[in-house]
Amino acid sequence: MTLTPIAIAEAVQAESLIGDKEKILTGFASLAEACETDLTFFSDARYENHLYTTKAGAVLLPSGFRPKKPLPAGLTQIYVKRPEHAFYSLVRRYKERPLPSWGKEPYSVIHPTAYVPEETYIGSFSYIGENVKLAPGVWVFPFVYIGAEVEIGEGTVIYPHAVIMPGTKIGRNCIIHPGAIIGADGFGFYKGEERLYERIPQTGRVVIEDEVEVGANTCVDRATLGVTRLGHGVKLDNLIQVGHNVQIGAHTAIAAQTGIAGSTMIGAYCRIGGQVGIADHVQVADHSSIAAQSGISRSILTPGKSWRGSPVQEVRQQLLMEAIMRRLPEIYPKLREIEKTISSL
Amino acid sequence: MTLTPIAIAEAVQAESLIGDKEKILTGFASLAEACETDLTFFSDARYENHLYTTKAGAVLLPSGFRPKKPLPAGLTQIYVKRPEHAFYSLVRRYKERPLPSWGKEPYSVIHPTAYVPEETYIGSFSYIGENVKLAPGVWVFPFVYIGAEVEIGEGTVIYPHAVIMPGTKIGRNCIIHPGAIIGADGFGFYKGEERLYERIPQTGRVVIEDEVEVGANTCVDRATLGVTRLGHGVKLDNLIQVGHNVQIGAHTAIAAQTGIAGSTMIGAYCRIGGQVGIADHVQVADHSSIAAQSGISRSILTPGKSWRGSPVQEVRQQLLMEAIMRRLPEIYPKLREIEKTISSL
Amino acid sequence: MTLTPIAIAEAVQAESLIGDKEKILTGFASLAEACETDLTFFSDARYENHLYTTKAGAVLLPSGFRPKKPLPAGLTQIYVKRPEHAFYSLVRRYKERPLPSWGKEPYSVIHPTAYVPEETYIGSFSYIGENVKLAPGVWVFPFVYIGAEVEIGEGTVIYPHAVIMPGTKIGRNCIIHPGAIIGADGFGFYKGEERLYERIPQTGRVVIEDEVEVGANTCVDRATLGVTRLGHGVKLDNLIQVGHNVQIGAHTAIAAQTGIAGSTMIGAYCRIGGQVGIADHVQVADHSSIAAQSGISRSILTPGKSWRGSPVQEVRQQLLMEAIMRRLPEIYPKLREIEKTISSL
Repeated sequence: MTLTPIAIAEAVQAESLIGDKEKILTGFASLAEACETDLTFFSDARYENHLYTTKAGAVLLPSGFRPKKPLPAGLTQIYVKRPEHAFYSLVRRYKERPLPSWGKEPYSVIHPTAYVPEETYIGSFSYIGENVKLAPGVWVFPFVYIGAEVEIGEGTVIYPHAVIMPGTKIGRNCIIHPGAIIGADGFGFYKGEERLYERIPQTGRVVIEDEVEVGANTCVDRATLGVTRLGHGVKLDNLIQVGHNVQIGAHTAIAAQTGIAGSTMIGAYCRIGGQVGIADHVQVADHSSIAAQSGISRSILTPGKSWRGSPVQEVRQQLLMEAIMRRLPEIYPKLREIEKTISSL
Repeated sequence: MTLTPIAIAEAVQAESLIGDKEKILTGFASLAEACETDLTFFSDARYENHLYTTKAGAVLLPSGFRPKKPLPAGLTQIYVKRPEHAFYSLVRRYKERPLPSWGKEPYSVIHPTAYVPEETYIGSFSYIGENVKLAPGVWVFPFVYIGAEVEIGEGTVIYPHAVIMPGTKIGRNCIIHPGAIIGADGFGFYKGEERLYERIPQTGRVVIEDEVEVGANTCVDRATLGVTRLGHGVKLDNLIQVGHNVQIGAHTAIAAQTGIAGSTMIGAYCRIGGQVGIADHVQVADHSSIAAQSGISRSILTPGKSWRGSPVQEVRQQLLMEAIMRRLPEIYPKLREIEKTISSL
Repeated sequence: MTLTPIAIAEAVQAESLIGDKEKILTGFASLAEACETDLTFFSDARYENHLYTTKAGAVLLPSGFRPKKPLPAGLTQIYVKRPEHAFYSLVRRYKERPLPSWGKEPYSVIHPTAYVPEETYIGSFSYIGENVKLAPGVWVFPFVYIGAEVEIGEGTVIYPHAVIMPGTKIGRNCIIHPGAIIGADGFGFYKGEERLYERIPQTGRVVIEDEVEVGANTCVDRATLGVTRLGHGVKLDNLIQVGHNVQIGAHTAIAAQTGIAGSTMIGAYCRIGGQVGIADHVQVADHSSIAAQSGISRSILTPGKSWRGSPVQEVRQQLLMEAIMRRLPEIYPKLREIEKTISSL
């Protein structure tokens, strides 16, 4: 890839361009890591310091932005409405590895009752079961298992080693990352007469709506009865556990290694950090923000608040508590002194 | 599936039946989610409220149960000794997807020295190594790797993408869920002369007794020397880590994302919540109950107690401590006032 | 395997041998678990008690070691410079399952542009993509996916079901355990105009230096731009999450289920316990030691210290705080008494 600032400015419909328009750019990098042949971008005020020291050849800047200090000499400036969007569009176009072309690779097993249109990619060693329905425009990478009665919508990518158990429904433009397991049995038992743990049959399914991402080695269990649901635009990072019958509302994003126990309902537009644990049968209200490593054992019913701790409290209260806890080693001796003083009075 | 209350009553050997015996039922659902064509059940007093508002067509109730309020009009009541058991038996019979029939699918690789009886299911893309011994009545789904010298007992199901490393022994009626990894090397090093971390050879094995479940993407490491053991009836949820040489006693159940470090011995009949961490070389006594997200760094020697916190304390003590901690923000200013008062005296 | 103390003494270049030189030994075991036909070793003072009660047939002891109590009657003693090293060398030689011989098993798919030397093991159902370069002396087990442009160095073992996504570079003598996923997309989004979460293209790669181990089902995400790097000799246990653009310094070891968020830099020679969470964009200084279940949300800049808690403090401070916290239930009533006394004054 070689690009010039002028070509970039045209491609992203820039509003103005200051500096050398014809220098050769060959890469993309962050402000801090860029070298003179890289394009970079600035949009987040937290990194403004890096802007004044970047070694990039050119930078995408927000229209109307006025630098507080002089920019590095020779840095070409391209002003554009949404620099982050412009930058990543270029990365996508010039650097992202294209997905494979339509076609079937050797050694795939497709059940005769499965519907697999021609405009799909079916990698080697993929297994497509009875009555599966793939839309046109689906990518099934090698080593993917797709169980009976699964439906997958247009534009969805299933990466290597993902397992889609029978009955699962996946919407459009989803990405199922490697090793993700969708629709394994939930963890449910009842006290039997012969056995302490008699298995509850897990006959429900998983429904994944459009524009969802499921991270590598993440597990989403099928419902006992009914449906485990990931709403529109949900984003799950790696190694997450989603228990049976969980409902996750639209546009909620969850970081790695978080676990959500059975039948819990997470609202829409939540942001949940990594390694959070959420008990079974609770609710988390819409627009909740949960700090990493938090533990939620009771429902959060008020929407739009930030929570932290295990068990969680509102973040301000929890931070105050943590600050006092850290002072306990200095408070404690004082307390003993007070006691002595009192008893001597 | 269509069923009538009278047919259900016969199938489950009900003691009595009140209401419409001939209505058509086509599904199964919980009290809260059922509609008029569903059968439901009531056995857990915590959900009794739902019983008086359920929209189900029929309900399985415990023999001798007397409702405290009027039941919904038109709800057919079927009284039976064990409603939960009766309900799930029906779900199993009418809704559970049957396991595949015996036979070999295309593209499986079976070592000539392996013993694979005819009454087994061997899915496509399964790999069965040297001297493996499968009992009759084993299901090996696609993409399962079974290493050399593995033995698997009757009635056991190995779901897609599970990895059974060499030398592992799995008992009867076990379920190994997708992506589980049994018998990978333990994490062990010693200080070498040339290298800081010299690898300790991991030459032990994993032994899994009868009626065990291992959840999706859960890892059970082989022993360094000797055996890592999951006792009879152990149930492991998803994404759990079981280190080398760990012993888990019979009928212990462990929720998702818990980790148990090397050489630790967990007793029988324990219940361990999700995201618990247990250090290496400790013991957890029989019948212990461990709350989610707890951390255990020392042995628990008294059986039958409930524990919580990181590091754990007995649950009552820990809850008391947590309650006071949450009051610290109000206690702290009082303390400063006391100090002032004292010093002014 | 049968060995005699005299043969062992020769094999490990022992300095002296006391007791029966010709007894038959057939196994290896720890001090506590050994029986009379086992060789064992003693090197860690913490287990010295076991030395005086071991039932082993022979023991490797450090040269110059003087037992404080009488050793068990009939225990043959073999004195050697480094007993642990001698013991594990013997285990490796006599008990470790050898890796498969070079050669290709049936049903592997190798892209015509891939470079796969003859001295490699290519298991059944392995997939090797475009322009992949394997060094001689690489083991690729069944069900391994190796994406385009991947390079793998001499002596490296890729166990079943590992996924090596395109562009990854793996050094020499590495071990990638089953189910590990190297180079899946990082979890990165920016606020779009149409969508709340617009996907940031993940076009960087993972570079793994020599002598690295990556545990079962562990995930190492590719960089957004640039490189996610595991330094020389890094050891990762199972089910770990390493986010995009993370850098882990040489000879750092990390226990199971720890998660490291994007762009964080872990120093060299760190020891990190299990279930630790480390936030994005922070630094952890060289030679840091982090207790299990800790949470790190700010940079640790001073090297060589021990940390514990969530959020972490230096271990001494944190232990003191925890001790006082556990005393809160007894402190709290005293405080109320003091209050009363004061107000009555």
